[in-house]
Amino acid sequence: MVDKMVFMFEEVDAKKPMKDLKLLYGGKGAGLVQMTDMGLPVPEGFIIPCKYCIQYAETGEWPEGMKEQIDECVSQLQEKTGRTFGDVEKPLLVSVRSGAPESMPGMMDTVLNLGMTKAIAEAMAENNPRFAWDAWRRFIMMFGDIVMGVKREHFDKIMDDYKAEQGKKEDIELTAEDMKAIADLNMAEYESLTGGTFPEDPMEQLYAAINAVFKSWDSERAVAYRKMNKIPNYGTAVTVMRMVFGNMNDNSGTGVLFTRDPNDGDKKIYGDFLFNAQGEDVVAGVRTPIKLEDLGDTNPDLQQEIYDLAKNLEQNYKDMQDCEFTVEDGKLYFLQTRTGKRAAAAAVQIAIDLLAEGLIDEQTAVLRVEPDKIEELLHKRISPKEKKKPITKGYNASPGVVSGGAIFNCNRAIEAKKNGEKVILVRKETKPEDFPGMLASIGVLTSRGGKTCHAAVVARGIGLPAVVGAGDLEIDEENATANYPDGSFSEGDVISIDGASGNVFLGTVDTVEPEISGAFADYMALCDKYRTMGVRTNADTPEMAANAMKNGAEGIGLCRTERMFNAKDRLPKMVAMIIADSLEERIAALDELKPLQKNDFIGLFKAMDGRPCTIRLLDPPLHEFLPDYKTMLVELTEKRLKNEEDERRAELEKLVKKYEELRESNAMLGHRGVRLGNTNPEIYKMQVQALIEALVETEQDGVEVKLEIMLPLLAHVNEFKRLVDLLKPAAEESLNGYEPKHPIKWGTMIEVPRACLTSAAIGSEAEFFSFGTNDLTQATFAFSRDDVEGKFLLKYVNDLTLKTDKGIVPILTDNPFEHLDLDGVGRLVKMSVEEGRAGHAEAHDGARLEVGICGEVGGDPLSIDFLQAADLDYVSCSPFRVPVARVAAAHAAIKAAQNK
Amino acid sequence: MVDKMVFMFEEVDAKKPMKDLKLLYGGKGAGLVQMTDMGLPVPEGFIIPCKYCIQYAETGEWPEGMKEQIDECVSQLQEKTGRTFGDVEKPLLVSVRSGAPESMPGMMDTVLNLGMTKAIAEAMAENNPRFAWDAWRRFIMMFGDIVMGVKREHFDKIMDDYKAEQGKKEDIELTAEDMKAIADLNMAEYESLTGGTFPEDPMEQLYAAINAVFKSWDSERAVAYRKMNKIPNYGTAVTVMRMVFGNMNDNSGTGVLFTRDPNDGDKKIYGDFLFNAQGEDVVAGVRTPIKLEDLGDTNPDLQQEIYDLAKNLEQNYKDMQDCEFTVEDGKLYFLQTRTGKRAAAAAVQIAIDLLAEGLIDEQTAVLRVEPDKIEELLHKRISPKEKKKPITKGYNASPGVVSGGAIFNCNRAIEAKKNGEKVILVRKETKPEDFPGMLASIGVLTSRGGKTCHAAVVARGIGLPAVVGAGDLEIDEENATANYPDGSFSEGDVISIDGASGNVFLGTVDTVEPEISGAFADYMALCDKYRTMGVRTNADTPEMAANAMKNGAEGIGLCRTERMFNAKDRLPKMVAMIIADSLEERIAALDELKPLQKNDFIGLFKAMDGRPCTIRLLDPPLHEFLPDYKTMLVELTEKRLKNEEDERRAELEKLVKKYEELRESNAMLGHRGVRLGNTNPEIYKMQVQALIEALVETEQDGVEVKLEIMLPLLAHVNEFKRLVDLLKPAAEESLNGYEPKHPIKWGTMIEVPRACLTSAAIGSEAEFFSFGTNDLTQATFAFSRDDVEGKFLLKYVNDLTLKTDKGIVPILTDNPFEHLDLDGVGRLVKMSVEEGRAGHAEAHDGARLEVGICGEVGGDPLSIDFLQAADLDYVSCSPFRVPVARVAAAHAAIKAAQNK
Repeated sequence: MVDKMVFMFEEVDAKKPMKDLKLLYGGKGAGLVQMTDMGLPVPEGFIIPCKYCIQYAETGEWPEGMKEQIDECVSQLQEKTGRTFGDVEKPLLVSVRSGAPESMPGMMDTVLNLGMTKAIAEAMAENNPRFAWDAWRRFIMMFGDIVMGVKREHFDKIMDDYKAEQGKKEDIELTAEDMKAIADLNMAEYESLTGGTFPEDPMEQLYAAINAVFKSWDSERAVAYRKMNKIPNYGTAVTVMRMVFGNMNDNSGTGVLFTRDPNDGDKKIYGDFLFNAQGEDVVAGVRTPIKLEDLGDTNPDLQQEIYDLAKNLEQNYKDMQDCEFTVEDGKLYFLQTRTGKRAAAAAVQIAIDLLAEGLIDEQTAVLRVEPDKIEELLHKRISPKEKKKPITKGYNASPGVVSGGAIFNCNRAIEAKKNGEKVILVRKETKPEDFPGMLASIGVLTSRGGKTCHAAVVARGIGLPAVVGAGDLEIDEENATANYPDGSFSEGDVISIDGASGNVFLGTVDTVEPEISGAFADYMALCDKYRTMGVRTNADTPEMAANAMKNGAEGIGLCRTERMFNAKDRLPKMVAMIIADSLEERIAALDELKPLQKNDFIGLFKAMDGRPCTIRLLDPPLHEFLPDYKTMLVELTEKRLKNEEDERRAELEKLVKKYEELRESNAMLGHRGVRLGNTNPEIYKMQVQALIEALVETEQDGVEVKLEIMLPLLAHVNEFKRLVDLLKPAAEESLNGYEPKHPIKWGTMIEVPRACLTSAAIGSEAEFFSFGTNDLTQATFAFSRDDVEGKFLLKYVNDLTLKTDKGIVPILTDNPFEHLDLDGVGRLVKMSVEEGRAGHAEAHDGARLEVGICGEVGGDPLSIDFLQAADLDYVSCSPFRVPVARVAAAHAAIKAAQNK
Repeated sequence: MVDKMVFMFEEVDAKKPMKDLKLLYGGKGAGLVQMTDMGLPVPEGFIIPCKYCIQYAETGEWPEGMKEQIDECVSQLQEKTGRTFGDVEKPLLVSVRSGAPESMPGMMDTVLNLGMTKAIAEAMAENNPRFAWDAWRRFIMMFGDIVMGVKREHFDKIMDDYKAEQGKKEDIELTAEDMKAIADLNMAEYESLTGGTFPEDPMEQLYAAINAVFKSWDSERAVAYRKMNKIPNYGTAVTVMRMVFGNMNDNSGTGVLFTRDPNDGDKKIYGDFLFNAQGEDVVAGVRTPIKLEDLGDTNPDLQQEIYDLAKNLEQNYKDMQDCEFTVEDGKLYFLQTRTGKRAAAAAVQIAIDLLAEGLIDEQTAVLRVEPDKIEELLHKRISPKEKKKPITKGYNASPGVVSGGAIFNCNRAIEAKKNGEKVILVRKETKPEDFPGMLASIGVLTSRGGKTCHAAVVARGIGLPAVVGAGDLEIDEENATANYPDGSFSEGDVISIDGASGNVFLGTVDTVEPEISGAFADYMALCDKYRTMGVRTNADTPEMAANAMKNGAEGIGLCRTERMFNAKDRLPKMVAMIIADSLEERIAALDELKPLQKNDFIGLFKAMDGRPCTIRLLDPPLHEFLPDYKTMLVELTEKRLKNEEDERRAELEKLVKKYEELRESNAMLGHRGVRLGNTNPEIYKMQVQALIEALVETEQDGVEVKLEIMLPLLAHVNEFKRLVDLLKPAAEESLNGYEPKHPIKWGTMIEVPRACLTSAAIGSEAEFFSFGTNDLTQATFAFSRDDVEGKFLLKYVNDLTLKTDKGIVPILTDNPFEHLDLDGVGRLVKMSVEEGRAGHAEAHDGARLEVGICGEVGGDPLSIDFLQAADLDYVSCSPFRVPVARVAAAHAAIKAAQNK
């Protein structure tokens, strides 16, 4: 007795939790069975669950009995529809669609009109010749493309050439005869390129199409998308459903809708409709559709019916829905519903609105916006002062303003990215295979399509600014030029696009920084209500600090004091300090640096206005401040050969000698941080005294200072203890009797594995910990961040795979410098927090050790989830990541509370 | 009511365990109270425990009541001896001696004859003028030196000048008048240099002397000795004891003895005796004593009495004793007994003999030899073929043959060591302050002293070859030359000394390697009986492997295959492989390397004759095989400036470009090990095929092979799994159907912290683990081994100190590359063993994962103790450390069993 493997829609228990339904039948399948269950008009069909896709990928075969169950479902379908496969009178035509547990729009394949043969087309042509031949030419093309691997561009070229020959512009101008002629041309191309004949048996077509859909799960673009979005290897379900024809006649059509505006969240139904067309025409953006709100002008009842069903779905799912529907000769069918992808602004607005409408609670509202999405809202906007006129305008498909060189070809875009260039991809339209090219670009501009076309959907999904359907733009992809009404631009010319307005400009534009207001402000307040971790920022200048505070930072978690030495006016003094021949000379050079550092600190303290400021003392090795070795050596060798005995030569000799003395074969593991502090305490002493003098002056000016002095790169508690013993008296000396408003705290970065492993001892001495996950990850993996990305790390994440029980996986799922490695680095972090707190409590009457993080992953939502579980007090991240961190921290806190 | 702080000898409970007695009263004090308790003739005295030394170091004061208790003990002493402080008729004179819980010979200070005044000297002079004035001049000198800081050399010079003036050579030739004159000169020098008068009150003298002894605990040489020998900051006890005078008359004398020969362990009493002398004369080696065995010629009863008491002590302590005794006008007193320091050969011989005598059991015998000492037995000997005649001969004070430049001054020896030179320290005699100079030398040669003089005792303690008392040698330290009967040598001339024979040679000598035989072989067999861990070796060539097997290695724990590429005939091929422009070129270069590697492996397999061979695949980054960058760059710049367009320039351009492409700012964290293996699997594939082909050929020649293939630098289990998936088929291909006698194992180095933290996963895939503690220590501390030693690590261990509850300590107690860091690296090792074994057992039906270590610390006794506790299966170390590791493993196993 074999398992039930293939299910008619109504055979599925639609009352199961949505999550389970999706895992079994994919998102599309789950929507169809639930819509069927809700009594919505859905064409009849059946479904093959996801797991058989995986089974097929592994074995290359269907499990025993599956074929028979498919045959049985086809029989039932024939019975329900009164139509029969291959019957020329009443033919059964079906769509064969993919559908994964998580939405992967445009990433997998679909075959429509399956079941057609030339005989059926001829019979259908008796009633509706244009529709019949159109359907037949489409089926040949799709079957050829998706099932047989004949590239679609071959068929597109036939169509384009034919239209050009006939002097026709829109598909709709093509007659039945035209369609028939194109179908014949398609068939000839099919036979010539496949070297075979087109299958006449619909069952044979069906089996092949099911396998093609299965295979599309592992297509290059689907695998890339899954990797980028961390989607597991679920497999795709296959739905086989009676075709309804939006292109049957002028009383037919097809559309997509969002129950609210996916761009800004506006509470109105938002969609496109194309008369006498099939769904793919809308999605592909080949023809520009009408707006759904304008449908009422001609078809008010149809519009109302669509609106009612859509609202019904939104109420049912308590979230904005993205639906596909088709009207066949006046009868409406819903073909798909799913949670709608949305731009960040829309996500925020919808969450706040649904909360106000009482459909969801506050926690759910918080969880409705992905933390990373928030960054989109922090995109620049065009400055109100910018007077430049746009050269053209399209749909505002995905927000953000970017400027870059125009590029007309995806492969060249990928090349350009490799060379570090910022390019804007300019295409008539985008197709699924263009996805890698879009990923390589900083923005997308198309001349075709609406806000729901491929380019728009994908760009919103990955937060890429996009303007689509800029119809005035004539794009010549082959010659890499584009004409707009008053001129033209070519590949490499800098253009700007504003994804929020749809405007396109030549050259760059002035921009302004974003603001947090309206629903965004409400949403952020909600996040702040629920999060339990603080959010600080990594800022080295008063400007950065001020920016971060606008974004909601509650303090500085990391100020890298060495950045102050790299400024043009300081570097020569720093170099003088480094090459000093004696301690006296070095101290003299430090004395020159001190007033500059002090002024920097005053600026920072004033900007932070009483919020905590964690200041890290000098961290990098000294040779980093010296000029490039190769340049010096070549110049010196030249001077030597030319016998030039000038001052510069003497200087070069000194510099080269010092460089060779200081340089290290493993600089990150070398003489830096507290190691340098311990061997050359005069440097830290200068910094501490500059800090204290700045504190005194700032407080005397009426601004309070919460100073936390942080020592980097501790491996042993004694490195800390010795320095604090040396530096506290220096601080006392600078205080000179002044009593600071807040006690000065002395703490340490935890960024060396040994510090994690001995945190009890370190915690008993330090007043705070802050994890430096960049260095910690570096040492824990023994991966040098400076070297390995180009040499093997990215290959580990992207290229080098192996077979495991969980399928084919890359060596590393993530770049551990982007997302905290939980098994290794995370384990050390957890150990350190627990043992550091215990050690501190034991040494200080039960006091709680303050623990934060200031590494890159402090702004990474995936990592923040873990850091919440590890019980950190705060995260600190770049100023522009602060809002993301606030949202992520709220998510983490809510999920932690729910899991309790 | 204050504590009892000062104890008369008989007030101490001498039945306490020796360990406790030593901790409380120091080794010397413990010996004295036990000898008193045993009824041996010991002068009366009292003792101040060690802890008051520490208290004094911290507070600079004595605890309340201590002074009164000292006064009370002085009263008791006066009563018992019938002598009184300051009394000119019957004066009480005492010695004030240091004595720590662990023996630190010559490291701290002693004051003798305390209580003297000029009046007392005059009174004493009535009976025995020479003795009286001698005692007086000695007391001024000692009190001046030790209590008041007047350097002893001032007094020595007075003595030497006086003797020279008078034309006298030995002290014994000096008359009473001479002594008085010298005493007066000493007093004048004392007053001139201290600017004060000499204290006349014996109580004042006593208090000052006690404090001087306390302070000598923290003298530079004592601190250096403690650091080197890892002796904790116990403090020293102070014993105050009635003086007995070996220099009272010709019926007096003083001596030291070992109950067995401390050099070779021979079972006979061995010592020196000096008539009419005080103990310091023997130890300092100023006059050459007679052998104790010759004492019977003149004083057979005295000799017998000494022998009986000494044997009594040895039986009591069940170990070889080192005793000091004095004869005062015919009456024998024992002043000290302690476990005798001994050379390694003696330690082994005595352990085996005491076992045979039934005094100790096997485990105790094993523990009687410090593992590190064993290395001495592996010292070279002079080749029997060496025909060179010695230029002179002295006492064979500490074994080993060394050749090096003669150096006549300790500071210059220290300088020479810094410059990497090997020098032999040549001195008339050595004094405690010469200890750092001895440490900096590879051998010591003196013209004065016997086998128990300072130079001999210290050299044996630190395993330094030494020849002492080479009386024919006239050493002129000031002019840095030495005359011997037939010639002379000067500073910098190469000389050789043989510490086993006492011979001294000019120039270098031929040597032979040591052998394991006799008591040494018995002892090693005993160790092997008790140890539970295996001992393998790190060997890269058949010669190294053969050497290690002679030393008892049970297999190869690490063969570094890259060393084979550095040979002259391979390096050009390796470079060709590295700079190959295409995969084809690279594979062609690898094909040339393969037969060479294969032959290396055949040699290794044959040498190991069926023992396990763990072969590590290529580990270092490729740029390490390229020529020096600076040299190439300078040469290229020169060619460019001179417009030389030759072939060499093209080659240089290619090499420089490749170097720049490959080099890394943190090479040890870079593209090497399995990372290189994964990106360029062709290299490992070549190595695996060379290994398998070598295995097949070796077994076909009748020698079995136990091959363990080891992958280096794993951070993630997938790096291992992917490579094993790629390499196993390559191995199968090379086996070509051949069935190896033993299954080939695939395992991994554990040398990255993350590998330790994820050992459960790695253990489930790997067939063995081997800890690479060099890299693991590097990453755990984030200390680059290549860089940090010169820049800060040695400063952390030697120079930079801080104050803690445990006193003043260096930042790091040990260099973690020499001794495993237990708190950090050790914790990771323990975690990895436990979790790796658990993961392996779960994946492989409970099978035990084999775990070893092949880092430097695999041959370090301190680390081996820990590795036993961590349950490792074997350690692997350099061939010459194998015997040390065998002994250390036996110690560890016995101690572990005892602690259970």
